Amino acid sequence: MHFEPFDSLHEECGVFGIYRKSSEGVKQEAYHALYALQHRGQESCGIAVNQSGVISCHRDVGLVTDVFTKDRMEKIADGHMAVGHCRYGTTGTMNRSNAQPLLVNHLKGAMALCHNGNLTNAFELRKQYELQGAIFHATSDSEVIAYTITQQRLHCGSIEEAVYATMGLIKGAYSLVIMSATKLIAARDPHGFRPLVMGKIGEDTVFASETCALDAIGATFVRDIEPGEVVVVSQKGIETYHTHAAVKRGLCVFEYIYFARPDSVVDGVSVHQARLTAGRLLAKAHPRDVDVVIGAPDSGLDAALGYSYESGIPYGIGLVKNKYIGRTFIQPGQEQRQNSVRIKLNAVRATVEGKRVLMVDDSIVRGTTSARVVRILREAGAREVHVMFSAPPFRHPCYFGTDIDSEETLIANRHSEEEIGRIIGADSIGFLSLEDLDKLTGDKQLPLCKGCFSGEYPTPPPVSTEKHKFEIPLKTPD
Amino acid sequence: MHFEPFDSLHEECGVFGIYRKSSEGVKQEAYHALYALQHRGQESCGIAVNQSGVISCHRDVGLVTDVFTKDRMEKIADGHMAVGHCRYGTTGTMNRSNAQPLLVNHLKGAMALCHNGNLTNAFELRKQYELQGAIFHATSDSEVIAYTITQQRLHCGSIEEAVYATMGLIKGAYSLVIMSATKLIAARDPHGFRPLVMGKIGEDTVFASETCALDAIGATFVRDIEPGEVVVVSQKGIETYHTHAAVKRGLCVFEYIYFARPDSVVDGVSVHQARLTAGRLLAKAHPRDVDVVIGAPDSGLDAALGYSYESGIPYGIGLVKNKYIGRTFIQPGQEQRQNSVRIKLNAVRATVEGKRVLMVDDSIVRGTTSARVVRILREAGAREVHVMFSAPPFRHPCYFGTDIDSEETLIANRHSEEEIGRIIGADSIGFLSLEDLDKLTGDKQLPLCKGCFSGEYPTPPPVSTEKHKFEIPLKTPD
Amino acid sequence: MHFEPFDSLHEECGVFGIYRKSSEGVKQEAYHALYALQHRGQESCGIAVNQSGVISCHRDVGLVTDVFTKDRMEKIADGHMAVGHCRYGTTGTMNRSNAQPLLVNHLKGAMALCHNGNLTNAFELRKQYELQGAIFHATSDSEVIAYTITQQRLHCGSIEEAVYATMGLIKGAYSLVIMSATKLIAARDPHGFRPLVMGKIGEDTVFASETCALDAIGATFVRDIEPGEVVVVSQKGIETYHTHAAVKRGLCVFEYIYFARPDSVVDGVSVHQARLTAGRLLAKAHPRDVDVVIGAPDSGLDAALGYSYESGIPYGIGLVKNKYIGRTFIQPGQEQRQNSVRIKLNAVRATVEGKRVLMVDDSIVRGTTSARVVRILREAGAREVHVMFSAPPFRHPCYFGTDIDSEETLIANRHSEEEIGRIIGADSIGFLSLEDLDKLTGDKQLPLCKGCFSGEYPTPPPVSTEKHKFEIPLKTPD
Amino acid sequence: MHFEPFDSLHEECGVFGIYRKSSEGVKQEAYHALYALQHRGQESCGIAVNQSGVISCHRDVGLVTDVFTKDRMEKIADGHMAVGHCRYGTTGTMNRSNAQPLLVNHLKGAMALCHNGNLTNAFELRKQYELQGAIFHATSDSEVIAYTITQQRLHCGSIEEAVYATMGLIKGAYSLVIMSATKLIAARDPHGFRPLVMGKIGEDTVFASETCALDAIGATFVRDIEPGEVVVVSQKGIETYHTHAAVKRGLCVFEYIYFARPDSVVDGVSVHQARLTAGRLLAKAHPRDVDVVIGAPDSGLDAALGYSYESGIPYGIGLVKNKYIGRTFIQPGQEQRQNSVRIKLNAVRATVEGKRVLMVDDSIVRGTTSARVVRILREAGAREVHVMFSAPPFRHPCYFGTDIDSEETLIANRHSEEEIGRIIGADSIGFLSLEDLDKLTGDKQLPLCKGCFSGEYPTPPPVSTEKHKFEIPLKTPD
Repeated sequence: MHFEPFDSLHEECGVFGIYRKSSEGVKQEAYHALYALQHRGQESCGIAVNQSGVISCHRDVGLVTDVFTKDRMEKIADGHMAVGHCRYGTTGTMNRSNAQPLLVNHLKGAMALCHNGNLTNAFELRKQYELQGAIFHATSDSEVIAYTITQQRLHCGSIEEAVYATMGLIKGAYSLVIMSATKLIAARDPHGFRPLVMGKIGEDTVFASETCALDAIGATFVRDIEPGEVVVVSQKGIETYHTHAAVKRGLCVFEYIYFARPDSVVDGVSVHQARLTAGRLLAKAHPRDVDVVIGAPDSGLDAALGYSYESGIPYGIGLVKNKYIGRTFIQPGQEQRQNSVRIKLNAVRATVEGKRVLMVDDSIVRGTTSARVVRILREAGAREVHVMFSAPPFRHPCYFGTDIDSEETLIANRHSEEEIGRIIGADSIGFLSLEDLDKLTGDKQLPLCKGCFSGEYPTPPPVSTEKHKFEIPLKTPD
Repeated sequence: MHFEPFDSLHEECGVFGIYRKSSEGVKQEAYHALYALQHRGQESCGIAVNQSGVISCHRDVGLVTDVFTKDRMEKIADGHMAVGHCRYGTTGTMNRSNAQPLLVNHLKGAMALCHNGNLTNAFELRKQYELQGAIFHATSDSEVIAYTITQQRLHCGSIEEAVYATMGLIKGAYSLVIMSATKLIAARDPHGFRPLVMGKIGEDTVFASETCALDAIGATFVRDIEPGEVVVVSQKGIETYHTHAAVKRGLCVFEYIYFARPDSVVDGVSVHQARLTAGRLLAKAHPRDVDVVIGAPDSGLDAALGYSYESGIPYGIGLVKNKYIGRTFIQPGQEQRQNSVRIKLNAVRATVEGKRVLMVDDSIVRGTTSARVVRILREAGAREVHVMFSAPPFRHPCYFGTDIDSEETLIANRHSEEEIGRIIGADSIGFLSLEDLDKLTGDKQLPLCKGCFSGEYPTPPPVSTEKHKFEIPLKTPD
Repeated sequence: MHFEPFDSLHEECGVFGIYRKSSEGVKQEAYHALYALQHRGQESCGIAVNQSGVISCHRDVGLVTDVFTKDRMEKIADGHMAVGHCRYGTTGTMNRSNAQPLLVNHLKGAMALCHNGNLTNAFELRKQYELQGAIFHATSDSEVIAYTITQQRLHCGSIEEAVYATMGLIKGAYSLVIMSATKLIAARDPHGFRPLVMGKIGEDTVFASETCALDAIGATFVRDIEPGEVVVVSQKGIETYHTHAAVKRGLCVFEYIYFARPDSVVDGVSVHQARLTAGRLLAKAHPRDVDVVIGAPDSGLDAALGYSYESGIPYGIGLVKNKYIGRTFIQPGQEQRQNSVRIKLNAVRATVEGKRVLMVDDSIVRGTTSARVVRILREAGAREVHVMFSAPPFRHPCYFGTDIDSEETLIANRHSEEEIGRIIGADSIGFLSLEDLDKLTGDKQLPLCKGCFSGEYPTPPPVSTEKHKFEIPLKTPD
Repeated sequence: MHFEPFDSLHEECGVFGIYRKSSEGVKQEAYHALYALQHRGQESCGIAVNQSGVISCHRDVGLVTDVFTKDRMEKIADGHMAVGHCRYGTTGTMNRSNAQPLLVNHLKGAMALCHNGNLTNAFELRKQYELQGAIFHATSDSEVIAYTITQQRLHCGSIEEAVYATMGLIKGAYSLVIMSATKLIAARDPHGFRPLVMGKIGEDTVFASETCALDAIGATFVRDIEPGEVVVVSQKGIETYHTHAAVKRGLCVFEYIYFARPDSVVDGVSVHQARLTAGRLLAKAHPRDVDVVIGAPDSGLDAALGYSYESGIPYGIGLVKNKYIGRTFIQPGQEQRQNSVRIKLNAVRATVEGKRVLMVDDSIVRGTTSARVVRILREAGAREVHVMFSAPPFRHPCYFGTDIDSEETLIANRHSEEEIGRIIGADSIGFLSLEDLDKLTGDKQLPLCKGCFSGEYPTPPPVSTEKHKFEIPLKTPD
């Protein structure tokens, strides 16, 4: 549960692609799939459609339903292939030029590229291309990937070989969906940081970040794309290449804890189930003598239910979120008052009044949101408020596609658990342990990237942490 | 849970008012209160501000966050009094001219009026005024109320006396918040069909449809406005008049079942608690041997939890709703396919697969949505699907502010319960009984209007049901 | 030529109506006619269409091409009758609620009303209706007219009789186009302050403020509506009533000088011709020894050509106006600089450099614009700059639909002609004399309203000049 | 005078740049300059501002006043340097990705580029870069220029040297304004196809396509940028390089005839004066015995005045254009009727009725507009209509930045002059001769590009005319 711009974590993207063998009419699927992936990125979105080899693209800043209005949908071309993307961007830099799909023209034709993740050697690659005279229009890693594929294509026999060769050069996290004049290609980095699945509707093949997008369009799940794998769909059918698999897998554990939708299944594990498990593990590790267990909507609800199951303490609906999402704002000078207002979130007094309440939330970043929720619960009459987090404390940066706050502002880097409890006003708090994280995927025992909690990453972080992100505008001597 | 335009019930409005004794700066409160009341009406909204007796108003079609952008909020005047309104309207008639607050000028000055409810004698009153030469700009009952107040004001000593006299003339459902140059007035019809509460922030007085709006702005609840009561706030303080109380109270029972937010308290009864009770009553009346109890989000969740509490069967999260509300649409010709797609709602396979599932929903109108959800659950692997409704079957029209479907299309009017179960594909279904409805308010034993279920209303319905609503445009001989 | 908000005159409206006998499809005509009348009002516009007696209306703030986009035009109903309106409003009060057509419902049905002009007894009438309990939604005279018609309709046998009776009660300037369920009615006040013409396309009848709107839709001019006349078009054909004619006609002379389009013919006199005549009269009255005569675009061009014809001095193109009309603005703090910039208007150096230039403009209000243009000409090298105005000096208020500046700010009220010349930096200036005004209409010798120049009006001005305009919001004791 | 999408010529761009030595605050100047250059391109526009070396850019589809609203202007950064651009694009391909300034990042920093013109070897250069692996985001020549500069920058010591080297590689028409972190650079192709001027305001240096933009911001004209010249403005002052000058100059003659604003001075010749001269030459070559000479607004007015001067026949105002520019549209099925409607243009009956009229227009493309205007004049009562064109007949394509119709649809390629006269319904017509074109610049005797009339160009046209324009999307085998 993250409400404030400076108290939040953000996934960077959702990707989608569809290939229809024998007829046109795929833009509607792209639209509904993006709508289902909206939680992975709300700043901008776009759809590129391939009509007989001709690619057209529309993308803009805004939610899917705002960018792709009925009028717009009628105007854009339809075709037999499409890719789509939704993207998160940091507050204040609503930047249309970074919106995807990225549509580029190169020697062998046009290519539309959708990327979820973050490279660790983008800065070095870009430098190298610039030394050859390359120009870059935007600040995203995705342009570096496009450039690399184009460079490789010069001496590769096909686009898929170029993608494959590119995977030997780029490092970090990437789940890609790429559309050329005649092919749809999906690729996942060797560690499998970000999810990517394949599905089908009749003879159509689709790729998406999460299974919830398959469900949204009536597609059935086929399988996860493997770490290091490239899948190519063309008139010849589906071909796959996968020798890039890394020694170490490392799906981002935060996909289970917060990013993915609970109805999605990521790498064979139900997100809802993983959260229930997190709740159960919390109940075992941090038993509390309370009257009711509630979840912080929406991401804390599943873990709260797990805590209730394990502990036998009744599950309650203690907090209600305003469902009309939209930018609300506080008048200047009203900040002092906002602590007692309940604009986005309100307590259900009938549930918490006079009770000893245990609330499960997904994680804590700066602590300001948690402090406010604790206060809301107390003002609604809660006698005690205990807070459990279904994740360990954040202590380290993420280089793989999550927009985590700077280390200095992370509350867990400056305070002990006990202090955090005091700061947010809780009677007690509890975190999921690093060890318990490994149990989230149950029997699957998937190796996960827990870098933001442990500081240990499946692959080396960027040499210079200063340089791991490009920023426009650049100050330069020219 | 209602997704389709033709399978839905709609509340018609939310109202708000604020009076600040000693300083300016109330528009921000109006804005946040309307945002909290958004669930009561999403078609249009408006705010009227009173700055030293001068009233200015902005209203438009759209959600609160769309109509009142940051730019707009900066531009509108601020003052020491404000009223606000959000409104639902039937699909296809997005009508700016019916948006409220209604701002009128009359002999004694300007008046802004916000109305929630529906009159049963508006047609007769309007006819009578037209016979005197009155003109009407819109089709709403609210203009009739404004006209009546203005007429009464001609021989009444004050605006509040005029409102009071008006209450002797208008019939039906109304919760009003009225702002004159110097006074803020709240009034509730003699039966108390629609909720209306009073709160305070420091010395400021506020009125709102629901307590969730008080919480949103940090106000504390003072009390409900009584049926038949008029409350006047002015420099002299707060005065109240209430001899209009009817023999029969009749709060709309659907406020508890579906309309109000679960965190609101209506006429002394927690909405969440009433829904829990509904679930418990369902469990007693319709016990089922199932593995998990799930709720249809969002309005069925509380009752599902009640069913789980009473039955001891585990509560589960079995359905997930896309939280990015916005108008999505289906391409023409895709209707046949939409039954298998899960655009707005998806099942959590981990919860329902291989299970005997009992789902609690709030009510059934046409049955198409219920049928679709049952299918979604079965496709996600549910072995059995039982459906419980926390309301009796709809069989009768509502004349008091709820936009219910025509009687002919109500599934309960054409089919037995058993048939309904078959039509929606459920293994069994169950409804809350009419008798159990009376138990929703627990010890309070509030008399409720159950007219849409029973056909018995606390006050006579309109003489001619044909005429109970005005429709523009009118065909006329002139 | 008027660029600045505080150095300008404004016409208040353009009106249009069309009646098609035997088929539908008139909205396109309404749209093009309003586009042709756009110069008469740029703040808001609207179209009401009558489809088999059912009237629907769309109106909004903005230019015709902005309000009636292609999408909007496709969405609005079409029918066999339509009325349209464009309106000017004072800067800063962009007020959607005053937009027309005014659509009202009354005892006998619906009525859409379009009004150009200004009543002188609106305040008294409104007061009287308010004493009967009437409410008013907006501040325009038009609502008073609608109310009066509705009141009269109570005891009149038909809408046209009601309009006719209304003309005995309302005073001042009005050109009306009214649409009821079955009739289209045009009416012009007894003095004929504002223009109103009738035309036809095949069997269709149209009414419009100016003939340029007839040309725009391919209609042929039939005749002017006479002062005091009512024309009714219905299935029965065209009927006319006109006994309201006043002793004194009084078409606003400024329609010829500035308001109307030069390609229009008003009351039998070509606007272009009248302006040519004004120029010739100026040449006779104020001969100057100059090298070139130029006009201030656009309204001064015709008179400049007349001056050239009469004097034999070459006509030149000396000033160019930016044709991309739109709101441009000056950054705060840049005001001091703007005197030397030529954003909206620029000089043609080749025409004026080293020359003795005589510029003809239509009129002078505050003088700031004239001063700036003289400076622009001098900076472009003009050796001498003489300025002629094709109107006498403004000295008095207008009560009949022209938004003239307050008397105190009129430069002619505070300074002699010689001083004005010095203030605007001209070598000499000249005004058209009051006597010459009467010669503008040539042989027709039309009696004109010259009140703003002479202070003598064809009908008494309002009793209280304070009260001749309503202003919302009103401060009141209630 | 060109009204229809398929009966028109289009300039492709306007460019602007400003360098302020000692303070910030240049965005307002960029805004007003673009507004003054709006006639050179109405599809899209953009401004890039340099604040202490940091470049930010806003660009979008739309007119300057629509894209740069007050709100937007307040939000964009201000700085000490800025460049701006407005662009024309073919109907139906409103393409945001081709909007300029083009902002790119390369090895040495960021660069914003504004381009007016068209290269003849862009296809070859792009091919060559693609063979090195380059990717292109858009279809404009401008991206090829940016790429070339970046490539050259790799082995050049400064941005200006890179621009200079680039001028040795790119061929065709280009007037460039380029902004780097610290420098503002203007460059004009060796033939000087498109205009480019330098001005100053105090110590600030500005560049613009036309002098009217200098006037708009209060800048004084310094001089034209010479063909082949590069001018660099930096902290060091102004430096200039110009050895690229071609043997053959070739300013596009259509800048005088139609593109440039009459108040601009291009390469030392007043546009207005050149048009007067064209009219005089027409009068000498094609004397007619008529009563009045009128111009087709706006571009035919100056030449009409010249014809009047030379012939002694009175100049008249015979046609009025609707000044509210905006997209109006004709309902499907109304095409047949539109010939008699006068939506955009209307005749002044007082001027033409019963007269022998000679109308001067700038040029004829397909002939449909001319035919319609002749008909409008005849319907308004003109006894004879003679049409003069202030240009020779179009017969050849333009490769240098003018969007001319395909050769097959040019009326002059399919019909003799006599036939054209008959087709457009004129009593007689006349064209300016190729020889007279050379006299437009008077004593200056500037060598002009007359390729579209003569087929002879100052520099070879592209090898493959098929390839002289890129089109997205490309069909490709990959």
